[in-house]
Amino acid sequence: MATSRADELKDLLAAVEALILPVVQSGDLAHDSLQAGSLSTVPQILDYKPPSELKTLIGLNLGEDGSGKDGLLELIQRVLKYSVNTWHPGFMDKLYASTNPVGVISDLILSILNTNLHVYTVSPALSTIERLTAQTLAARFSLTSPFSGGTTQPGGSAANLTSLIVARNTLIPTSKTAGTSSLHPIIFTSSASHYSILKAAMIMGLGTSSVRNIPTDSSGAMIISELEAAILASKAAGELPFYVNATAGTTVHGAFDPFTAIGQLCKEHGLWFHIDGSWGGPFIFSPTHKAKLAGCELADSITVNPHKMLSVPVTCSFLLGADMRKFQAANSLAAGYLFHDSPDRNGDDTTWDLGDLTLQCGRRGDAFKFALSWVYYGASTYAKWIDDAAAVANLMAGLIKESSDFELVGGYPVPCLQVCFYYKGDKGLSEDKEVNTRTTARIVQRLVGEGFMVDYAPGEKGHFFRVVVNVQTKREVVVELLGAVRRCAGELGV
Amino acid sequence: MATSRADELKDLLAAVEALILPVVQSGDLAHDSLQAGSLSTVPQILDYKPPSELKTLIGLNLGEDGSGKDGLLELIQRVLKYSVNTWHPGFMDKLYASTNPVGVISDLILSILNTNLHVYTVSPALSTIERLTAQTLAARFSLTSPFSGGTTQPGGSAANLTSLIVARNTLIPTSKTAGTSSLHPIIFTSSASHYSILKAAMIMGLGTSSVRNIPTDSSGAMIISELEAAILASKAAGELPFYVNATAGTTVHGAFDPFTAIGQLCKEHGLWFHIDGSWGGPFIFSPTHKAKLAGCELADSITVNPHKMLSVPVTCSFLLGADMRKFQAANSLAAGYLFHDSPDRNGDDTTWDLGDLTLQCGRRGDAFKFALSWVYYGASTYAKWIDDAAAVANLMAGLIKESSDFELVGGYPVPCLQVCFYYKGDKGLSEDKEVNTRTTARIVQRLVGEGFMVDYAPGEKGHFFRVVVNVQTKREVVVELLGAVRRCAGELGV
Repeated sequence: MATSRADELKDLLAAVEALILPVVQSGDLAHDSLQAGSLSTVPQILDYKPPSELKTLIGLNLGEDGSGKDGLLELIQRVLKYSVNTWHPGFMDKLYASTNPVGVISDLILSILNTNLHVYTVSPALSTIERLTAQTLAARFSLTSPFSGGTTQPGGSAANLTSLIVARNTLIPTSKTAGTSSLHPIIFTSSASHYSILKAAMIMGLGTSSVRNIPTDSSGAMIISELEAAILASKAAGELPFYVNATAGTTVHGAFDPFTAIGQLCKEHGLWFHIDGSWGGPFIFSPTHKAKLAGCELADSITVNPHKMLSVPVTCSFLLGADMRKFQAANSLAAGYLFHDSPDRNGDDTTWDLGDLTLQCGRRGDAFKFALSWVYYGASTYAKWIDDAAAVANLMAGLIKESSDFELVGGYPVPCLQVCFYYKGDKGLSEDKEVNTRTTARIVQRLVGEGFMVDYAPGEKGHFFRVVVNVQTKREVVVELLGAVRRCAGELGV
Repeated sequence: MATSRADELKDLLAAVEALILPVVQSGDLAHDSLQAGSLSTVPQILDYKPPSELKTLIGLNLGEDGSGKDGLLELIQRVLKYSVNTWHPGFMDKLYASTNPVGVISDLILSILNTNLHVYTVSPALSTIERLTAQTLAARFSLTSPFSGGTTQPGGSAANLTSLIVARNTLIPTSKTAGTSSLHPIIFTSSASHYSILKAAMIMGLGTSSVRNIPTDSSGAMIISELEAAILASKAAGELPFYVNATAGTTVHGAFDPFTAIGQLCKEHGLWFHIDGSWGGPFIFSPTHKAKLAGCELADSITVNPHKMLSVPVTCSFLLGADMRKFQAANSLAAGYLFHDSPDRNGDDTTWDLGDLTLQCGRRGDAFKFALSWVYYGASTYAKWIDDAAAVANLMAGLIKESSDFELVGGYPVPCLQVCFYYKGDKGLSEDKEVNTRTTARIVQRLVGEGFMVDYAPGEKGHFFRVVVNVQTKREVVVELLGAVRRCAGELGV
C-alpha cells in the first residue's frame, strides 16, 4: 500500500489526541477550580447555539470531493467547540456524565476490532467476554442458575422491550407465529416508571392502553395493594395479565419499588417479573445500599445500564435473565445463512451465537467496555463511588431541606442520586403552576452560563429542578450549584 | 485531582496505541503479501479457540479488587490475540470488514463526547450533524421534500422494525393506543429478504404468519406479479395489507428488487413502501451502479447501513424517511421529564430532539462516524470504492464461471459484491445435498488456516460458499482465495 493504514492511523491518532486532551483538561480544571472555590477560573460547559445557527456554524460539507485530513480536523474542532463538555463537573443534567479514561480506550479497541457479536465465529473473544460478564453481573443480582446470564442491548429501552417480548412469547407461546390478536395481554408498571414500557406496548401492537399505571406512594415507589387490585381487576375483565415492570431507581426521583412483594405477587399470578434497573441497578455493588434491591433474586429479567451510573461509555446496557433458554426460544428465528451450528452447543447450554438471544442482528461489543472497567477498578471501587455519590446527593438534599428559599421534592434521605427541588426565594411558590415552571426553566437555562447543566421535571406545583449527582461529583460542586441557583434567581429577579 | 483524568488518558492512550497498531500492521502485511503473491508471509487471520477453551484462556477477572493498568493491558492483549483481525484482507465472511483510520478516530471522539442524542440540549453538535447527514443521504435517494430526513438506528434490524412501526401507526392510527388486536395487518417481503422483517412481525404481536414471502426470480429479485397476486389475495381474505419491504442487496446474493414497479403497486394499494438497503443502499453513490436503485424516490422509508459497505465502524445504520413528521407522530410519547420544548420548533419543522423520532431513548452519535468519513473521503471516493469492488467481485465470479471445478450460484455479472459458488472438484456435485453442505463447511473451516474467512448459505444443492468482497479487497486476494479453496479441498480429499 502507498501509505499503510497503520501509519495513517498513527498519524490521525496523534492529531486527534491533541484535540481531545484539552477537552478533558478543561473538565479537570473545572473540577479543581470548583473544589478550590475559584469560580472565576471555571471553564465553560457549553457554548450553546440553537439549531438555526448551528446548522451553519458546524460547516458540514458532504459533497463529491473529500476534504482529507485538514477538513476532517477542522470539523472535529467545531464539533468539540459546540458540544457539551460532559467531563465538566457541572454536567448534572442526565443519568450519565462523562466516561473515564478506561472507557475511552475501550471504545478505541472496539473500533479496531470492528466486528459483530451476532455469531461466535467472527467475535470469539468479545462474545466470550459478553457471556461471562453478563453471567457475573446476573450473579450479583442472585440470578445464579446454570442458565442465568444476559446479553447487551442497544439501550435500556431496547432491553425493556426485549424483556417484554421474551415474557410474551414464553407465557403466550402461540404469539410468536400467530400474534396476540385479541388476547388482550396486559402490562403493569408504576406511574413513575420510564416511558420505554409504554413505547414497547405500542411497538408490540398492544397499544398504550394495555399498560396499567399503578399509583406510587410519596417516595415514588409502587403501591403493592394497588398492583394486586389492578391484576385482579384485569383478570376479572377477561384480559390476560402477563408482565409486571418494577423500577430500581426511577428516572425523576430515583425510587425503588418493593421487589420482594412484587415478585411474590407475580409468582402467585403466573406473571413475568421484570426489574428496570437501567439507572439504579448498580446499587447492587454497594454493601450499604444493596438492600434497596432485595427481592431482585425473584426477577425473570433485569435491565442494567453501566453507561449510566458506572461511567461506562454510552451505550452499554445489559438485559439479564434468570433463564436464558427462554430468551433463545422466544427470540430465535432460523436464518440459515447466518446461524450455523453454534460451537460447543449441547443440551446443557444456550447458544454462543449471541445474536440469536436478542432482537438484533448487528451488535457492537458493548459488554467489553464494562468488562474493562470492572477489571480495572474492581467491584469494591464501584461500591465506594456509589456510597460517596449517595452521600453527596444527601448533603445537597439536606442543605435544601434546611434552606427557607428551597423546597425539597420527595423524601429525605433521597433514595438514589437525584435531588429534586423548587426554588421559592423569599416569596414562596406561586399558586400558579405555570409561574413556578417558568421560574425553574429560566433558572435552568441561565445556569449554563454559570457552568451547570441540570434538568427539570413536571410535579404537582409545576416543573421542579432535577439534579443528578454522578460518581465523579464532589461536595463542593453541589454547594456551589445551590449558590449559582440563587445568583441566577437574583439576576432574573424571581 | 491526584492524577488528572487528562494525564491518565494520555498515558493509557499511549499504552493502548502500542497494542492496537500491530493489529493494523498485521492486516497491512497480509495485504502486501497477498498482492505480492508471497503466501508464506501472510499473517494469521484468527487464532480460533472454541468457547469451552476461550472462557478460560481469556482470563477475565471480575472481582472485588481492580487489577489496574497492568491487568487492563494484559486483558486487552488476550482479547486482541483471540479476535478475528478484520483488517486482514482474507476477512470476507460478512457484509462488513474492518473500518479505516478515520473510523477509528470517530469512535474515539464519540467516547470523549460521551453524550446522548435523545435531546438537543445535551448534544447540539452531534444532533445537528445527525440531522444534516441524514437529510443529505436522503437527498441522494431523491427524498427531497422539506420534511425528508432520517435518524440513526442501532442496526439494520432496528431500522426495519422502526419503519414498520411508523407505517402501522400512520396507516392504522388507532393502533398506537388501542393496538392492532384482530385487524390482521399483513406484511409483504421477498423470500430472499433479511430475517429482521420476520422478527419485527413477531415483535409487533402480528406473529410471523403475518409475513407473506413473495417468490423471487433466478437472480433473487422479487417477482412483481407474485406480489400483486399476494396483495389481492390478502385483501380478498379480509386482511389488512399495509407494508411492503423491498431489498437493495439481499443478504446472500445481493439482489435488488424492482423498486419502481413495487413502489407503483404500493401507491395503488395505499401500502407503505420500505426499502431495506442495509447492504446495497450505498450503490446510490456510484454513477455506474445507481440505476439498480431506480424507483427509490417512491419509498416511504429506506434503511442504509454505512457500517457495512462503506467501512464506517459498527454500528452505523440510518433509517431515512420521505416525511419525518410521520415518524414523530408515530413514535412520540410525551415524557415530560425528558422532552421539553424542542429549540427552533415551528410548524414547518420536525423536532430537533431526535430521540422523539425513534423507538430508543439512549442513542449514540453514530451519524458522526459517517459524517467524518464522508467529509474525509467525499462521495466520489465512495463511487470509486464501489466500482472497484464490483469489478473485483465480477472478476472472481468470472473465474468461477470458467472453471470446471467450481459452479457459480446466481447470475453473471453478480448484482452486488457477493460471490456465491459450489466447489465440485473433478467429480461434480453430489446428488445428496448433505454431502455438498459438508464439503462446503469443511473447506470453509479449513480456509481459516489459509488466512481466509468466508461464510456459507443454504441452496438447492446444499450449502454453498458466500464470499463478500469489500471495498478494500484487491484482485490478487480473490484469485488467491480460489487457489486456497482448491488446496483445502485437495488436503481434505474432497
